[in-house]
Amino acid sequence: MAEALMRRLNSGAADFSVQLDALLAWDSVSNPAVVQTVSEVIAAIKQRGDAALLEYCAAFDRLNINVAAELEIPQSRLLAALDNIDQAQRQALEVAAQRVRDYHQHQRQESWSYTEADGTVLGQQIRPMDRVGLYVPGGKATYPSSVLMNAIPAKVAGVPELIMVSPTPGGELNEMVLAAAAIAGVDRVFTIGGAQAVAALAFGTETIPRVDKIVGPGNIYVATAKQQVFGRVGLDMIAGPSEILVVCDGLTDPDWIAMDLFSQAEHDEDAQSILLCPDAAYLDRVEASIERLLADMPRSEIIRKSLSGRGALIDVADMAEAIELINRIAPEHLELSVEEPEQYLPQIRHAGAIFLGRHTPEALGDYCAGPNHVLPTSGTARFSSPLGVYDFQKRSSLINCSPAGAQNLAQVASVLARGESLVAHAVSAEYRLGVDAKS
Amino acid sequence: MAEALMRRLNSGAADFSVQLDALLAWDSVSNPAVVQTVSEVIAAIKQRGDAALLEYCAAFDRLNINVAAELEIPQSRLLAALDNIDQAQRQALEVAAQRVRDYHQHQRQESWSYTEADGTVLGQQIRPMDRVGLYVPGGKATYPSSVLMNAIPAKVAGVPELIMVSPTPGGELNEMVLAAAAIAGVDRVFTIGGAQAVAALAFGTETIPRVDKIVGPGNIYVATAKQQVFGRVGLDMIAGPSEILVVCDGLTDPDWIAMDLFSQAEHDEDAQSILLCPDAAYLDRVEASIERLLADMPRSEIIRKSLSGRGALIDVADMAEAIELINRIAPEHLELSVEEPEQYLPQIRHAGAIFLGRHTPEALGDYCAGPNHVLPTSGTARFSSPLGVYDFQKRSSLINCSPAGAQNLAQVASVLARGESLVAHAVSAEYRLGVDAKS
Repeated sequence: MAEALMRRLNSGAADFSVQLDALLAWDSVSNPAVVQTVSEVIAAIKQRGDAALLEYCAAFDRLNINVAAELEIPQSRLLAALDNIDQAQRQALEVAAQRVRDYHQHQRQESWSYTEADGTVLGQQIRPMDRVGLYVPGGKATYPSSVLMNAIPAKVAGVPELIMVSPTPGGELNEMVLAAAAIAGVDRVFTIGGAQAVAALAFGTETIPRVDKIVGPGNIYVATAKQQVFGRVGLDMIAGPSEILVVCDGLTDPDWIAMDLFSQAEHDEDAQSILLCPDAAYLDRVEASIERLLADMPRSEIIRKSLSGRGALIDVADMAEAIELINRIAPEHLELSVEEPEQYLPQIRHAGAIFLGRHTPEALGDYCAGPNHVLPTSGTARFSSPLGVYDFQKRSSLINCSPAGAQNLAQVASVLARGESLVAHAVSAEYRLGVDAKS
Repeated sequence: MAEALMRRLNSGAADFSVQLDALLAWDSVSNPAVVQTVSEVIAAIKQRGDAALLEYCAAFDRLNINVAAELEIPQSRLLAALDNIDQAQRQALEVAAQRVRDYHQHQRQESWSYTEADGTVLGQQIRPMDRVGLYVPGGKATYPSSVLMNAIPAKVAGVPELIMVSPTPGGELNEMVLAAAAIAGVDRVFTIGGAQAVAALAFGTETIPRVDKIVGPGNIYVATAKQQVFGRVGLDMIAGPSEILVVCDGLTDPDWIAMDLFSQAEHDEDAQSILLCPDAAYLDRVEASIERLLADMPRSEIIRKSLSGRGALIDVADMAEAIELINRIAPEHLELSVEEPEQYLPQIRHAGAIFLGRHTPEALGDYCAGPNHVLPTSGTARFSSPLGVYDFQKRSSLINCSPAGAQNLAQVASVLARGESLVAHAVSAEYRLGVDAKS
């Protein structure tokens, strides 16, 4: 028998914990040359605006235009893309968009307030951001589904102006991406990319409006630029390689599980696919399915490298141990291909998205189930959430003290402020102690 | 007449917009030497854990202990602090804590789900983080109110383990801070600080447990360390200097407004206090109050530097223009010292906290009104929110497809996946097209 494609681990092994840590380890490499280049690009855009932007478009994207206004793709061109694409694909995009919209409506948060007995009103006013920028990569990693997943939550939140940027090397437009932008309700589109696009969105130029938040994936230049504008503009998380953790009870067709592992692995050689099962014989069957099905995959080389480099089949003692490992791994995607999967939900503390049951492969969530496919990677589900409407809303605290309420609160504030030696705070509070306190 | 303490601007001036930009400009200075030192500290903690931690405690905090376990302050010592402090202060802390708790209860978010006609279930499971770290500065900037404001939302979210760290130079404990920790329900306290404390919380040592998120203010070493562990652990925002924007209709006692401006300015020479009013004569009256009241303030020198360096009295045309400026400035604290302040709420898009009416000075919100005093600074209210319970909860998407639902979704996913040349995604979906699709 040939050497196995995927590493096999057993949770009972003495060194299992060390092996698991090694398997999960992922350090994004930062590159000083990239950091330096990006700093220069950002400084140039800040100082010279459109002029610098046009230079970078020419240098990096072979896009030679003289008037910055030509960087914008008009809405009429987006609508034309809807007619240019395959109509079955258009319909699928429209169905997916509607489902994503319906799901995300449930995430909208509303302002709230309450009135205390003394008439004081407390609450929180919740509002959309004014203007959001969406980065869409050019070239091979351009996914129309990603346009839907990033744009729709912003529009459901009520963001009035959603600006998409995407590089168009050599001026070539991607019809599917433009069509997805039209369906998602993107307001304006500019053909810019790279660190210069991030800088233009963060600081604004004569042509590109400054935004309040930038979302969307990008290459190392885009990720580095996002890090450098941190604090100046809101940002989504910076994603690591995509991963799936499948937990199977050994009763799902092994071909299905093999293909679910492939669907993660085909993204990227660094993607991670892990299967947990309490039945070692079933792991053999999945391995056999993998060997048999792999050759037919158009991306078999990427899948092979991903599975052999970062994948694993793990033999666990029982479901209780599987749950423990789920919480330790905090996977981006968790597939529970088991009987009555709902029973395990109360015990699962950390996962970006949970796919329950044998009929819920991750691929459905990637495209059209409704929930977002932008999810926390590399164990960050311990503290992060899927991209959502809440990422495009923000809150203002509301405090409206009645004269009587102010009296009660001012006494407490005065004691605490004097305890912290902040006397102006104390006096400011004390002035409100009586309505006759006016001097 | 002596030169005025605060600069006076008029919104009708030709160069007003440029002047306003200059007034608001704030760039946090990054210091390469600090970045280098912090990198070394983090690397040492990662590699040598407790041993390195004890060395830094000795070097930076004159804290010479040999056993890392002695870094922990036992719960019994926290409870003792409750008896050691002034009992009026204890009572004020307890009242404040209860009000903060009551308010933040309104922010708790609950899991939700819905079932579609074909039996497919979609939703989101909302959970607290497992373990959170709270940084509390040592020395002069140690505020017990800050312990309450950072700790209580985490406990309301249901975080089971809240770890506080605070440096104790020379081993000196701050009774008020320990008492606030006891009242807020902090689970464990360690006497560590600086970049080494951030590193210990982010990576864990033999003694300090690794946390999922770190919150709380700190000096430049702490802020730099937080930037360097970004992505590895959740973080709150990195705060700039505190600011207040007061809008007054000219009918509030000018002493009250002067003192409200002082209460912001006394925090820090870099703090910013701005007053907008459509009545120029009222601005003169506030200026006179400032001149008269300033000398009596224990922190008059800090207030003077803050008001003269970063403060402004701005004469605006009318309330409509004031609202425009509010949204442009996006202040951390907004005080609407006007008649019927509620009428303006629908127009206010950006502010960390809004204090409505003449009886609601910011000082009440700083201590005990209920809302959080950790707020977005430097215009980041455009895209950020007050610290809240939502900062300690996270979400997992839930997708449970019925066999019938999977059929509908698989057709859409298959079309889109093939459009993106992700064939394994397509096949994984297609396997679920019929329950008899098993091979």
